[in-house]
Amino acid sequence: MRVPVLAINFKAYSTAFGEKGLNIARAAERVAKEFGTVEVIVIPPHTELRRIVESVEIPVFAQHADPFDYGAHTGWLPISALKEIGVRGVLLNHSEHRLKLDELAYLVEKARALDLETLVCADTPISAAAVAALRPTALAVEPPELIGTGIAVSKAKPEVITNTVDRVRQINKDVILLTGAGISSAEDVEAAIRLGTAGVLVASAIMKASEPEKVIRAMVEAAHRAYKK
Amino acid sequence: MRVPVLAINFKAYSTAFGEKGLNIARAAERVAKEFGTVEVIVIPPHTELRRIVESVEIPVFAQHADPFDYGAHTGWLPISALKEIGVRGVLLNHSEHRLKLDELAYLVEKARALDLETLVCADTPISAAAVAALRPTALAVEPPELIGTGIAVSKAKPEVITNTVDRVRQINKDVILLTGAGISSAEDVEAAIRLGTAGVLVASAIMKASEPEKVIRAMVEAAHRAYKK
Amino acid sequence: MRVPVLAINFKAYSTAFGEKGLNIARAAERVAKEFGTVEVIVIPPHTELRRIVESVEIPVFAQHADPFDYGAHTGWLPISALKEIGVRGVLLNHSEHRLKLDELAYLVEKARALDLETLVCADTPISAAAVAALRPTALAVEPPELIGTGIAVSKAKPEVITNTVDRVRQINKDVILLTGAGISSAEDVEAAIRLGTAGVLVASAIMKASEPEKVIRAMVEAAHRAYKK
Amino acid sequence: MRVPVLAINFKAYSTAFGEKGLNIARAAERVAKEFGTVEVIVIPPHTELRRIVESVEIPVFAQHADPFDYGAHTGWLPISALKEIGVRGVLLNHSEHRLKLDELAYLVEKARALDLETLVCADTPISAAAVAALRPTALAVEPPELIGTGIAVSKAKPEVITNTVDRVRQINKDVILLTGAGISSAEDVEAAIRLGTAGVLVASAIMKASEPEKVIRAMVEAAHRAYKK
Repeated sequence: MRVPVLAINFKAYSTAFGEKGLNIARAAERVAKEFGTVEVIVIPPHTELRRIVESVEIPVFAQHADPFDYGAHTGWLPISALKEIGVRGVLLNHSEHRLKLDELAYLVEKARALDLETLVCADTPISAAAVAALRPTALAVEPPELIGTGIAVSKAKPEVITNTVDRVRQINKDVILLTGAGISSAEDVEAAIRLGTAGVLVASAIMKASEPEKVIRAMVEAAHRAYKK
Repeated sequence: MRVPVLAINFKAYSTAFGEKGLNIARAAERVAKEFGTVEVIVIPPHTELRRIVESVEIPVFAQHADPFDYGAHTGWLPISALKEIGVRGVLLNHSEHRLKLDELAYLVEKARALDLETLVCADTPISAAAVAALRPTALAVEPPELIGTGIAVSKAKPEVITNTVDRVRQINKDVILLTGAGISSAEDVEAAIRLGTAGVLVASAIMKASEPEKVIRAMVEAAHRAYKK
Repeated sequence: MRVPVLAINFKAYSTAFGEKGLNIARAAERVAKEFGTVEVIVIPPHTELRRIVESVEIPVFAQHADPFDYGAHTGWLPISALKEIGVRGVLLNHSEHRLKLDELAYLVEKARALDLETLVCADTPISAAAVAALRPTALAVEPPELIGTGIAVSKAKPEVITNTVDRVRQINKDVILLTGAGISSAEDVEAAIRLGTAGVLVASAIMKASEPEKVIRAMVEAAHRAYKK
Repeated sequence: MRVPVLAINFKAYSTAFGEKGLNIARAAERVAKEFGTVEVIVIPPHTELRRIVESVEIPVFAQHADPFDYGAHTGWLPISALKEIGVRGVLLNHSEHRLKLDELAYLVEKARALDLETLVCADTPISAAAVAALRPTALAVEPPELIGTGIAVSKAKPEVITNTVDRVRQINKDVILLTGAGISSAEDVEAAIRLGTAGVLVASAIMKASEPEKVIRAMVEAAHRAYKK
C-alpha cells in the first residue's frame, strides 16, 4: 500500500451495487490516475468484487473475510477465495462487522501468507494497540468520539487521533495509520493527515453524494496537498 | 419452485469458485434441460452469483442473506441487493449458518415481499415445525441422525424423515419439503422422495465429485423416476 | 403457570443485584400473597438466583439459559444447572438476548423434559407464530410498535396485540400469552388483559421505580380486577 | 495476583454446581493455606459466585463478563455487578467463550478501573501478542497444538510455549503468563513453570477427578517446588 491513502468503503448502500457501484469504482480510478500520488482503494460488496476487479486497475479490497479456508461453509467467504478472485486486500473488523480477536489474528496471518494486504479498524487507543500487535498492513482508527456522531475530524479535539497514534507507535513503527471516522469533506482529509495519519477510510460522504466523482477528486486533491507538507 | 427438486449447495468448496463453479452450474443446466421435469437449483457463493445468474437459465439461489435493507452494513449482504442481482431465491438457516429466529422471520417475510423464494433448513421435528409456521417456499429437513454422520437416507430408519414430515404438515400443508442431509447417491434421492419429501438439498456428493455432471445426471434421473411413482 | 401473570424481569439494572434485588423479590412475594389470584414471577440475574430461590416461595425464573448440557462450557449456563438450583422456569429469546431458532427449539424441548416452564419472547406476528409452534408454556409478544418506543399498550392501536394473538391461536390454542412491551402502568396491565393476553412481562416500570412495591401492588391489583371480567 | 498460580476453571461441569462446587472451592482453600506460597484461584459458574465468595478467602474469579455496565441487558452480566458480588477478578476470552477484540479491550480497561484482575486467554503467538498489548493482569496461553488434543505440556515440544512467551515479552514485560492447555498432572505444572510461565489454568484434571483435593495438592506442591528453582 502506497501513501497517502483514500480508501472508499462502499458498505451496502444501494449505490454500491450494479452499475452505480461500478461507476463509482471507475470514477475513483479516473481520479487516481489524474493525481498519481494518492493510493485510491475501492471496497465494494462481495457480489460486486469479481466485476470490479476485472474493470479497474486500482486496488480493490473486500469488505470482510471469514476465518477459515475452502470447505463446507455455507454462506461464508474464505479469504483464499478472495485472493483467487483477485482482490489486493481485505478490510477487517469494521465497526459494523467486528471480529473475535482469535479470528482477526487468524485472518491477518492468513492474509500475509496469501500476500494480501489488510486494513484493520479499531476504536479506542487500547483496541488499536492490540490490532497494531497483529502487524496488519494498515490500521484505521475510529475514535468513539467521532464514529456515528456526525462530528468531523477537522472540528474535533486533535487528541482523539493523536492519542491513538502515540499508543500504536509504541507497539508498531511500520503499520500505515488511517483515520476511519469523521470524514465528510476534503478539509477532514487534510486534518487527518495533519494529525499524523497517512490518509482516510471514508464511506457515506462519497457513496451518498449526488456527484461522487467530485467528492473523490476534492478528497484526493486534499490528500495529495496535505501529504506533501 | 416446481417439484421434484435437486438443489445443489456449492458451499465454499474450492470447486465453487471461478471457472470450476461456473462449469458445475452449466452442467446442472444441461442436465435440467435434458429431463425437463426436475427443478435443478444452483446455490453458489456470493462472489459468483452475478456471473452465474448471467450464464445460466435455471434458478440460482444465494447461500445466505443478512437481515436488513440497503445501508451502512459493511461486509453484509441485504436481501434486496440479492434480488437486484437476479437470484430466484435464497437458502436460509443452513446448519453451517444458523439464524436467530427473529432474523429468519424477517428474511422470510422480506423475501416474500420481494418475490424471492426461500429454502429454509431445520434439524429436529420441533425446529421444522417452527420454520413451517414462517411459511417459506421450501423447507429442507436435516435430521441430526444423518447430518455430518455419513449415514445415508436410504440406509436410515424411515422415521428420521417421516416424523418431521408429519409434524410439519400439522402446521403447514403447502410448504415444499426437501431432504437436506444424508444424500450421497441417486439411491438416496429416491429414498428421500419415497419417504414423502419432494426432492433433496445436496452438496459434497456433487461438489467433490471427480465428474460432477455424472452425479447430477444420476440424481436428476432418480428424482424424475421416483417422483412419477 | 397460573393466570393472570405479572412477570418481573430484573434485567441487569443496578437494583437487580444484592439486597436491592432481594428486596424486590420479597416485595413481589408479599403482594402475591395479598391477592392470591395473580401469578407473580420474579426473573433475577444468574448471580442472584440461588439466594432468591432460597428466600421466596413465588416462582423464580432465570433470564436466559445456554443450549447445552453440563460440560466444558466456560462462562455459559446449562439449563440443567438452572433446574438443579431450583428455578421454576426460564425466560428465553428476550429482545435483548435473541436465540438462534435451533437453539431455542432445543431449550424449549429440554426445559419440558426437565419439567421447567418456558416464557419465550417474540416480536412480529410471524415470529410469534414460529414460537407458538415450539409449544412453550408462555409467549410474551413484544410488538415492534411498542418495544423501546415509550408507547404504552393502553395508548396503542389494539391491533398491535390482537393481530399477534390471532396468528398464534391458529397454531397453538394452549400457550399462555403475555404482553411483553409497552407496560409502564396499571392501566397498561388492564389494557393487556382486555386485548386478550393473560398478563404482562414488565421490567423498568418496577426496577427503576422509587417504590417498587407500590408499582407491583397497583399492577397486581389491575391484573386481578381485569382478569375477573 | 501473586505467583506461582494454580487457577481452577470449574467450567459448567456437573461438579461445578451446588455442594460439589463448594467442596472443591473449600478443598482449594485448604491446600492453598497448607503451602502458603502458591496463589490458588477458583473460577466457578456465575450462579455459584456469591456463595463461594462468602465461603472462602482465596481469590474467586468469574468465568466471563459481558461488555457493558448496569442496565437493560436481559440475561447478561455486567462486570460492575461481578465487582459488587466480591470477585477478585475475571477470566476472559477462554477458548470456549471468545470475545470480539473491541469487547475484550473494553472489559480489560473497565476491570482495571474497577480494580478487578483479568486473566485473558489466547491461542497462537500472534493472538497472545495482541492480548499482551491490552495489558491484562495475566495471560493464559492455549497452544493449538495442545488445546483439546490430549497432548500434555510435559510431552510437547517446548516451542509451543516458549515461542508465545518470547512474542509476548516483546510487547509486555509485566503480564503474568500462565499455561492454559495441556495440564493434566503435577508433571505438567512443573513443565509449564520450567518453560517460563508462572503457573497454570486447569479444568477437567481437577473437576472430573474422583478426588479433586488430591489432584489440587499434587499440582500446588509441584508449582511450589518448580517455582523455587
